[in-house]
Amino acid sequence: MIIVMQPGAGEEHVRRVIERLEANGYGYHLSRGVERTLIGAIGSQEHKERVAEQIERLPMVERVVPILRPYKLVSREHELVPLVVKIGDAVFGREKLGIIAGPCSVESEEQIIEAARAVKAAGAHCLRGGAFKPRTSPYSFQGLGPEGLELLLAARQATGLPIVTEVMDPRQIELMVDKKVDALQIGTRNMHNFDLLKEVGACGLPVVLKRGWAATVQEWLRAAEYVATAGNLDIILCERGIRTFETETRFTLDLAGLAAAKLETHLPIIVDPSHATGTHKLVPQMSLAAIAAGADGLMIEVHPHPDRALSDGPQSLTPKRFSALMDEVRKLAAVMNKEL
Amino acid sequence: MIIVMQPGAGEEHVRRVIERLEANGYGYHLSRGVERTLIGAIGSQEHKERVAEQIERLPMVERVVPILRPYKLVSREHELVPLVVKIGDAVFGREKLGIIAGPCSVESEEQIIEAARAVKAAGAHCLRGGAFKPRTSPYSFQGLGPEGLELLLAARQATGLPIVTEVMDPRQIELMVDKKVDALQIGTRNMHNFDLLKEVGACGLPVVLKRGWAATVQEWLRAAEYVATAGNLDIILCERGIRTFETETRFTLDLAGLAAAKLETHLPIIVDPSHATGTHKLVPQMSLAAIAAGADGLMIEVHPHPDRALSDGPQSLTPKRFSALMDEVRKLAAVMNKEL
Amino acid sequence: MIIVMQPGAGEEHVRRVIERLEANGYGYHLSRGVERTLIGAIGSQEHKERVAEQIERLPMVERVVPILRPYKLVSREHELVPLVVKIGDAVFGREKLGIIAGPCSVESEEQIIEAARAVKAAGAHCLRGGAFKPRTSPYSFQGLGPEGLELLLAARQATGLPIVTEVMDPRQIELMVDKKVDALQIGTRNMHNFDLLKEVGACGLPVVLKRGWAATVQEWLRAAEYVATAGNLDIILCERGIRTFETETRFTLDLAGLAAAKLETHLPIIVDPSHATGTHKLVPQMSLAAIAAGADGLMIEVHPHPDRALSDGPQSLTPKRFSALMDEVRKLAAVMNKEL
Amino acid sequence: MIIVMQPGAGEEHVRRVIERLEANGYGYHLSRGVERTLIGAIGSQEHKERVAEQIERLPMVERVVPILRPYKLVSREHELVPLVVKIGDAVFGREKLGIIAGPCSVESEEQIIEAARAVKAAGAHCLRGGAFKPRTSPYSFQGLGPEGLELLLAARQATGLPIVTEVMDPRQIELMVDKKVDALQIGTRNMHNFDLLKEVGACGLPVVLKRGWAATVQEWLRAAEYVATAGNLDIILCERGIRTFETETRFTLDLAGLAAAKLETHLPIIVDPSHATGTHKLVPQMSLAAIAAGADGLMIEVHPHPDRALSDGPQSLTPKRFSALMDEVRKLAAVMNKEL
Repeated sequence: MIIVMQPGAGEEHVRRVIERLEANGYGYHLSRGVERTLIGAIGSQEHKERVAEQIERLPMVERVVPILRPYKLVSREHELVPLVVKIGDAVFGREKLGIIAGPCSVESEEQIIEAARAVKAAGAHCLRGGAFKPRTSPYSFQGLGPEGLELLLAARQATGLPIVTEVMDPRQIELMVDKKVDALQIGTRNMHNFDLLKEVGACGLPVVLKRGWAATVQEWLRAAEYVATAGNLDIILCERGIRTFETETRFTLDLAGLAAAKLETHLPIIVDPSHATGTHKLVPQMSLAAIAAGADGLMIEVHPHPDRALSDGPQSLTPKRFSALMDEVRKLAAVMNKEL
Repeated sequence: MIIVMQPGAGEEHVRRVIERLEANGYGYHLSRGVERTLIGAIGSQEHKERVAEQIERLPMVERVVPILRPYKLVSREHELVPLVVKIGDAVFGREKLGIIAGPCSVESEEQIIEAARAVKAAGAHCLRGGAFKPRTSPYSFQGLGPEGLELLLAARQATGLPIVTEVMDPRQIELMVDKKVDALQIGTRNMHNFDLLKEVGACGLPVVLKRGWAATVQEWLRAAEYVATAGNLDIILCERGIRTFETETRFTLDLAGLAAAKLETHLPIIVDPSHATGTHKLVPQMSLAAIAAGADGLMIEVHPHPDRALSDGPQSLTPKRFSALMDEVRKLAAVMNKEL
Repeated sequence: MIIVMQPGAGEEHVRRVIERLEANGYGYHLSRGVERTLIGAIGSQEHKERVAEQIERLPMVERVVPILRPYKLVSREHELVPLVVKIGDAVFGREKLGIIAGPCSVESEEQIIEAARAVKAAGAHCLRGGAFKPRTSPYSFQGLGPEGLELLLAARQATGLPIVTEVMDPRQIELMVDKKVDALQIGTRNMHNFDLLKEVGACGLPVVLKRGWAATVQEWLRAAEYVATAGNLDIILCERGIRTFETETRFTLDLAGLAAAKLETHLPIIVDPSHATGTHKLVPQMSLAAIAAGADGLMIEVHPHPDRALSDGPQSLTPKRFSALMDEVRKLAAVMNKEL
Repeated sequence: MIIVMQPGAGEEHVRRVIERLEANGYGYHLSRGVERTLIGAIGSQEHKERVAEQIERLPMVERVVPILRPYKLVSREHELVPLVVKIGDAVFGREKLGIIAGPCSVESEEQIIEAARAVKAAGAHCLRGGAFKPRTSPYSFQGLGPEGLELLLAARQATGLPIVTEVMDPRQIELMVDKKVDALQIGTRNMHNFDLLKEVGACGLPVVLKRGWAATVQEWLRAAEYVATAGNLDIILCERGIRTFETETRFTLDLAGLAAAKLETHLPIIVDPSHATGTHKLVPQMSLAAIAAGADGLMIEVHPHPDRALSDGPQSLTPKRFSALMDEVRKLAAVMNKEL
């Protein structure tokens, strides 16, 4: 980090900064310019953020500029080669695109099995479906809970598709592990739920980590670092739209954020165009754009009867439209030197 | 809700909408204009959001316009008189301002007791202090946990101040209830953690519910509705800044959002200027602005030695500056016909 | 529009709304629900926004919900078939992709001619280059002015490429028309400069209208409506990123906004990935994503020597990288059934 | 500025950076850490932004960190004492609060004179009123133009209040100067209209410079620097709300942005709560909050008959409500040691 002193800072003020650095095992490097004195901290990486905050609070310190990124294990500096993550037999990363599809919520055995068969027939590699649902209103459908999970397992049984489902509460993890769910999803509202991140990271299952809708790329990678420090690098990041002033779409899909994140991390990143846009009318265009932008796969909401869905109908594709989209994705993948 | 049909929608399309309304117990009201046909839904409020989503997905429906607000118990329509909420002896609402102050994290017995004594001497009504801490980086100080809670209890013992502390995980609630914590705080990152909202709502303790940093006022009130439907209306809302493009401050304090929320809800609302701005240099101005905007109180970070704090030092006031601020708040309160 | 009355609104309040509607030539339609009375305005479209504002201000009116979109000429309802716009021989719209490339600023004869030759060789259809430059700081390079325009004309002469250049001030239009510039660009900072929009619309030249970086899709289309009402429908919209909380990229490229706008308007829409991302490292990915999302073309910054550019070097491609990108765009276009 | 090299940068890469610095008259200071090499630029401030951009584009450069703020004349470093700006006899700055009030648009002689008398009676110091109006839709009322200006002059004649009016186009400045308008307003949509800033700065009249609704505090101060470099420091900044995801209010009033700007600049800053909130229901609360936050005055929309206004009725106060608000402002001012 570099400490920028205010104009007018005296010897005494500089000395206090240096003392604080030395007390924390840092060396330093002093540079006196005409308008500002700069102090570069050298060496120790211990308690970096705390030391930075403390120094920022010393008198006549203008600001503290961090130099290094606040994550390590998930960084390309740590591991240059892109990582490949598997969910069951599905492969995400490098030249392979993985497609996860299915309804927002598990609603009934008939619904989830019909959905699973349809997305499998169209070429999807994993089935998604929510048993435990986060809903903005307490008056909305809250999911079937453990029963929904059983139905999801039945759909896996019926189709062979590995299943991905959201975990909202650390107490649900044990059940998920017992039932051998193929991957856990951490939803956008829980990206900052650090207890959950750590326990999911420790449970051993692959993780789909959605970006918080108000999280910067840096914060998203730090959330992944939480999972990674718990011992698990089988992390698939998922861009799903950020909140902006634009109301024409539910969120603003940040494909440049995806491309920027891929410059920083070796983890695979997929895109959820359904939640990002909030309308089935924009899902095909955004699916193709995501692949062209370099995404390692897609997560798409598909419902056998969107106009009778208990949640997220407006953004769900019909099986027929999903199948047509998969054909377009395949053609595009070929041009991008990727395989489905 | 009102359903707006696309231009060119035919009888058949209108009929499908009406069928869906009737199947869900709604009446309807048809209005054919030159450019659009409108269908007003009448009566039933059951499954309102689900029915709206399903109809939005029918062919030739342009959009569905909701008419009623998606919350009830916390609404001024439900209860015209502003609610008063107590934390221990501290009173929030109507003519009373409540002041919560203390460090970000509990760091040691000496620190928390020194802080508690200082804020009490300056006139604060409650002590804040985090035992379980949500930190963006896994490499930052994560709080002392249960031991931190014990130290907080010791500070209450020493000063008589009621204590407010954050709960991040439903499994921590039982301990908090056992220890007779005076109020639970739900942090900005957990405003959308619906399981937590429900369990906190059911536990019987007063709740300080912070606004999610990317939550609209409507979503914030819906989160309060989650707590309220679990049986608890002892809710103090807390505005703490929203995320915007501006980087000069850590977040953007939304005082107009506070004033707008007060037109909608009978719950008291306080303001946290420390997290909103991220710097002690702006806390006094924003504290006064909050009171002038109609806030029912403040939550302010105060640390006996901000430049040695383990977290949030840059935004913490010294006891001396806090005491001076309290004098200014008192003068302002008098003009606003409020009492501290 | 639909007027939603507050609960408790009486006959008198409803009567005042109806009087105001009738005085402005509207009919009305009254619907009394249990919780709200609704009044639908019928007929006249005169002074719609003003009447809506006035009614919103009447006592016991909760809000006024607009039903129709606030633009006409640029709407798909007005003209179902996508429009094709030409700049010189370059074609934008339907199955044709148009590529505009060149440096941010015209710096010298050598620079602009070298750039023009390079982008032509790579397959671009138009040359961009700024003579009059809007710069955030008064201490930055402000463009060569009229001399820059002459150099741009020389580059057109040398290569045959039609030229697109930004107009910042209505007083520059006459010169542009005199010099037979092929298309005028209205920059992101001027999308709300309504005098400029009207005068550019009246001058007869094709227009590239960039989206304001804080403009909604609706406002962008209204800005196009300003140009169109002045008599000119030769408008190419250009998405160039919006301002959000994310700082990893300079702006957030809103490709879903582009796709949403294409559902609303018959005008062609291109994408500027250079300004959207602020870095050459993300331009290729975002160029491809834009085409996959349905863009009708691209506007890309190319500089013969980006590390010596007087402006926007960090986001400029070298001719070599641009040429490689054009090869990728061509392959992608084939899959999208588009021609370059 | 400080140049941060990528890990793995070699001698050759460092040398290229140093060459570029030296070629532009900078010295340098080299610091080799374990993970990054840093190069501090020393001395010259010439072409700072251009040089920074060029260096950012050199190979193996990770990023360039600016150290100094990009404005000078408007900075507190340049002038420690807060500036006082006068519009006619009205004084803005230090212990004096200035109040500007009046309708959005000049609509008729009767309307503007009635408004002027009312705001004067309530204690306002200046009259606002738009003759040239920027309107988002081409179908909205566009202002009376030069005739509106004449009516404004008549209102000044009738009341003695100095007048403030918006200039949207450099060609309107001459007329404004001829007519001896007391101050020019640069609206939020024109904060980035640099030609206008320069010409307004050169005309000699005091300027009210509104913050762009998507401008950072830094960009706002740079816009003021444009005016200042043209020779005029009689600048009153005006915060009027920024665009965020929140839709409960039209914009998000950024009072912390105001307080942060006051730490940076010696210019007075006022607040426009009318445009910020978009509703008269929130104007009083936000007016008081602004004063408590340290604003040097207010700009408030007042219309004798808001429900018949041709523009901005919903956010306009009646004279009666404005008068009551002025009483509250006076009481608050006394507490803040300010005079009206």
